[in-house]
Amino acid sequence: MVSKSQIKLITSLEQKKHRTKMGLFVVEGKKGIEEVLGSNFELHSLFTTQDIFNAPQDKTHLISEAELKKISRLKTAQIGLAVFEIPVQTEIKLDGLVIALDGVRDPGNLGTIIRLCDWFGVQTLLCSLDTVDCYNSKVVQASMGSITRVKIDYVDLPLFLKENNSHLKAGTFLEGENLFVSEIPKDSILILGNEAKGISEGIEKLVEKKINIPQFSNVKNTESLNVATATAILLSEFRRKENY
Amino acid sequence: MVSKSQIKLITSLEQKKHRTKMGLFVVEGKKGIEEVLGSNFELHSLFTTQDIFNAPQDKTHLISEAELKKISRLKTAQIGLAVFEIPVQTEIKLDGLVIALDGVRDPGNLGTIIRLCDWFGVQTLLCSLDTVDCYNSKVVQASMGSITRVKIDYVDLPLFLKENNSHLKAGTFLEGENLFVSEIPKDSILILGNEAKGISEGIEKLVEKKINIPQFSNVKNTESLNVATATAILLSEFRRKENY
Repeated sequence: MVSKSQIKLITSLEQKKHRTKMGLFVVEGKKGIEEVLGSNFELHSLFTTQDIFNAPQDKTHLISEAELKKISRLKTAQIGLAVFEIPVQTEIKLDGLVIALDGVRDPGNLGTIIRLCDWFGVQTLLCSLDTVDCYNSKVVQASMGSITRVKIDYVDLPLFLKENNSHLKAGTFLEGENLFVSEIPKDSILILGNEAKGISEGIEKLVEKKINIPQFSNVKNTESLNVATATAILLSEFRRKENY
Repeated sequence: MVSKSQIKLITSLEQKKHRTKMGLFVVEGKKGIEEVLGSNFELHSLFTTQDIFNAPQDKTHLISEAELKKISRLKTAQIGLAVFEIPVQTEIKLDGLVIALDGVRDPGNLGTIIRLCDWFGVQTLLCSLDTVDCYNSKVVQASMGSITRVKIDYVDLPLFLKENNSHLKAGTFLEGENLFVSEIPKDSILILGNEAKGISEGIEKLVEKKINIPQFSNVKNTESLNVATATAILLSEFRRKENY
């Protein structure tokens, strides 16, 4: 059974201010829940129509399809919904390549970028304070479990970059150096900008190396690449140079 | 003004069977409409609240916000909606690198892949018959105008690959050769598979070279990369090898 207060809690977690206040976030669907259960994230409560999860019994609530539908945000509710504790933010450690996002707003893009960091072994993902919250349910969904394996830190990005002196700050700009011939040191922060506006002026001033993904079409057009596909290309090229 | 028959036509174009029957598709929003107007696609009719487009007057219909809202599929209707003619499918020419999609179903993924083909100068995009229709409005939207610059052909993919002998057929598989050390000839067809199931069995038999994008994370996980980000990495690496 789901109590009224539980419904109220779960619904409130749709909003960032409540997630932050309560230190909790929601994961939906069998695969997503299993991924997070298998990580070191702490389970708060699990609501499921089938007792198939490897979770403590005292935190597991068997519920009906109708009850699940009531608390789910998905069009088609899937087996279960779990509430997990947001990990306490620990000291930021920069080791090797770091990705920094300057105002990425689309949940799907952030989820894809988290998944890419996981794939390419990037330990730390820095997000500016105006980047979409990584515990937004759409981000969690799109990250496919990678959110448990990548350390994500929200920081005052201009201040952070100004104070850091261990890493080279690199960013993508149309007038930048060709990515494929550019040398990017092992300890770098690669900065990616907002979907519409790119890297903000304040951050641009702090960039020490501008790089560009060359375009190969006959007809030049003004469109840039999507921020998630740009991240994919940058990470792949960085690891290639490092390893092959 | 929008007549009842015009509303009926526009609404019917939400369905693939009607788009195919009428040979027409819909583009919404200022930027998208301008991109397609500037291409060699033929305008059928334009409905707009502001007379700001460079389009023939006899095909331009000035309408009210309320009328636009009635015909728009967007949550927030934007300035105009245009109907264009679907180009007549001409002979398929394979010159240089070709991308082939085997059952890609997500409109956002197909749109992103069209945009990537445009960026990386891929002239021909082959789609299996069960790949989502490229004139679906979500695909058109996500392709950001690139749909006018990339030739997209829907074919019986297994038959087409079987009969082609000019190109090497390459595909992405977990057990494939490392992309970064693999040699891919100039005349290749790179095959990408369905979001959930990957490349189908029938197509796998026809693949002459299996390649893999290596994973660099410490914890191996079973998730693969999203099909659009995989395409980005493959195209970028192909062009790098060719040019640098």
